[in-house]
Amino acid sequence: MPVYKYDVTMTCSGCSGAVTRVLSKLDGVNSFDVSLETQKVTVDSDKLSEQEILEKIQKTGKAAKVAA
Amino acid sequence: MPVYKYDVTMTCSGCSGAVTRVLSKLDGVNSFDVSLETQKVTVDSDKLSEQEILEKIQKTGKAAKVAA
Repeated sequence: MPVYKYDVTMTCSGCSGAVTRVLSKLDGVNSFDVSLETQKVTVDSDKLSEQEILEKIQKTGKAAKVAA
Repeated sequence: MPVYKYDVTMTCSGCSGAVTRVLSKLDGVNSFDVSLETQKVTVDSDKLSEQEILEKIQKTGKAAKVAA
């Protein structure tokens, strides 16, 4: 199953909590991890593309991009 | 023009910045104000309903409701 990694700017637990809430509600996600410390979001999905997940994360208003 | 008011849980400037970014990109909004201090968001729109705007704010992953 593909695992996608993103850099997401999050500055407090409210920020990381918001990203967590959005990913929790997203159909097609098997599992995910949101790290405030490393500013990384990892998503395991075999139904959604890297780009589709990125757009959902960006809908939170956070600056986000696919991690290099 | 109707002005809608919402209570939105925001705990840092990254949180309020995310809400600001989403409202900035939303078509049909004449003006808006996001206050981290009072946890209030005010939106002036004659094209969108109170509920439509609430749903956009909730897409950020923040806890939000129409202000009493």
